[in-house]
Amino acid sequence: MSHDNVEFILVEPSHPGNVGAAARAIGTMGFKNLSLVKPTKHPHPESRARSSGGLDILLNAKVFETLDEAIADSSLVIGTTARERRISVPIDLIHESTEGIFKTSLNQKVSIVFGPETSGLSNDDIDRCNRLVYIPTGEMYSSLNLAMAVQVIAYQINLSFFGLSEDQSQRELASGKEMELFYEHLEEVLLQTGFLNPNNPKQLMRRLKALFNRAELDDNEVNIMRGILTSYQKPRLKQ
Amino acid sequence: MSHDNVEFILVEPSHPGNVGAAARAIGTMGFKNLSLVKPTKHPHPESRARSSGGLDILLNAKVFETLDEAIADSSLVIGTTARERRISVPIDLIHESTEGIFKTSLNQKVSIVFGPETSGLSNDDIDRCNRLVYIPTGEMYSSLNLAMAVQVIAYQINLSFFGLSEDQSQRELASGKEMELFYEHLEEVLLQTGFLNPNNPKQLMRRLKALFNRAELDDNEVNIMRGILTSYQKPRLKQ
Repeated sequence: MSHDNVEFILVEPSHPGNVGAAARAIGTMGFKNLSLVKPTKHPHPESRARSSGGLDILLNAKVFETLDEAIADSSLVIGTTARERRISVPIDLIHESTEGIFKTSLNQKVSIVFGPETSGLSNDDIDRCNRLVYIPTGEMYSSLNLAMAVQVIAYQINLSFFGLSEDQSQRELASGKEMELFYEHLEEVLLQTGFLNPNNPKQLMRRLKALFNRAELDDNEVNIMRGILTSYQKPRLKQ
Repeated sequence: MSHDNVEFILVEPSHPGNVGAAARAIGTMGFKNLSLVKPTKHPHPESRARSSGGLDILLNAKVFETLDEAIADSSLVIGTTARERRISVPIDLIHESTEGIFKTSLNQKVSIVFGPETSGLSNDDIDRCNRLVYIPTGEMYSSLNLAMAVQVIAYQINLSFFGLSEDQSQRELASGKEMELFYEHLEEVLLQTGFLNPNNPKQLMRRLKALFNRAELDDNEVNIMRGILTSYQKPRLKQ
């Protein structure tokens, strides 16, 4: 079922009240999966108090040390951001990006990722996202509380899931783990070719990750790309 | 202006934290009018603390003894309710009722009314509403926190007020000619690495074109990809 394949991930939330309120928020919209990456205080009585009818969700929340671990089995990773960023990960308004979330969630895992209260998602975290979404706000003041942002996005996804029919076929997207291994292999080969500067490989790798994340590779395509990399590493043919 | 003609009214809110969070919530969506009917604790340090950038809205909140006074100059009064009620006031999903709110708010006042945390709007209060709206929720658990409900409804009204996708910045995508040259270069290199079968290169090239077409490369990214291909064709570095 679609709702059960959607996971809400809070990265380094510092206020336990927000964690509890987020659990309640996703519960009201029919979702149940909450993951926490390095929460500052967890478990905590304040998060219990604020979770209300979402207590089960809070108690069953998975806790991870890194975002990579949290998204390891996700096929589509959606980052949330307060405003437009100057990078090449596509940014959509949340209400315009729910169809892709729905289609993937029919048979694969989707992660919706929220950054820490004050700083938002780091660039490294954003590099693991297929897409970014933002909530349209007023111009004067645009800073939603973390749990409020979770509530709005859960509301919008649930609302869109209503209207969409369940029989849309979908490609099997590669998992977060497969993409991680692909990027490691890519970096290795590009260091061998001399394309990447060993002293500063990161910036170009970020651009490449953004490109391939945007393409939303399926298993087969990851295998093709890995095959290309392996073909380089074999003894060179005559030219 | 439309936003300034919309007023959010909390009837007998018992938790000052919710009052502050509601002030922040409506502020993030470009609204500024908050009214309180017989708030249990107001003013209160906790509401200040939770209001964040919505502090002005909180400080300017009007306080009334009765709902009648609060809605005295409103042309359209919308009550919010958690679930369908068996009464004769029309009930709509919030996202299906925003057009009427918008049209009225162009030149008249609209009030959005929220009941107390535990009991919701009383029948007497509902009798003062032109319409009722509700937020679609999951089936298992449907009780949104008061401030969360304010946030979702403010979000949905603001969203509808937008011209929707107004200022989507657009990347400069690579031209068809640039993509053609990239694909020729890619095929040339993949024949050199031995990845492509010279007798039947076409099927895999089609897969690769589909992948890169989906990613919608910009000029810069095409240059990066061409750079990778060129780095392969240079004399091989020591491995």
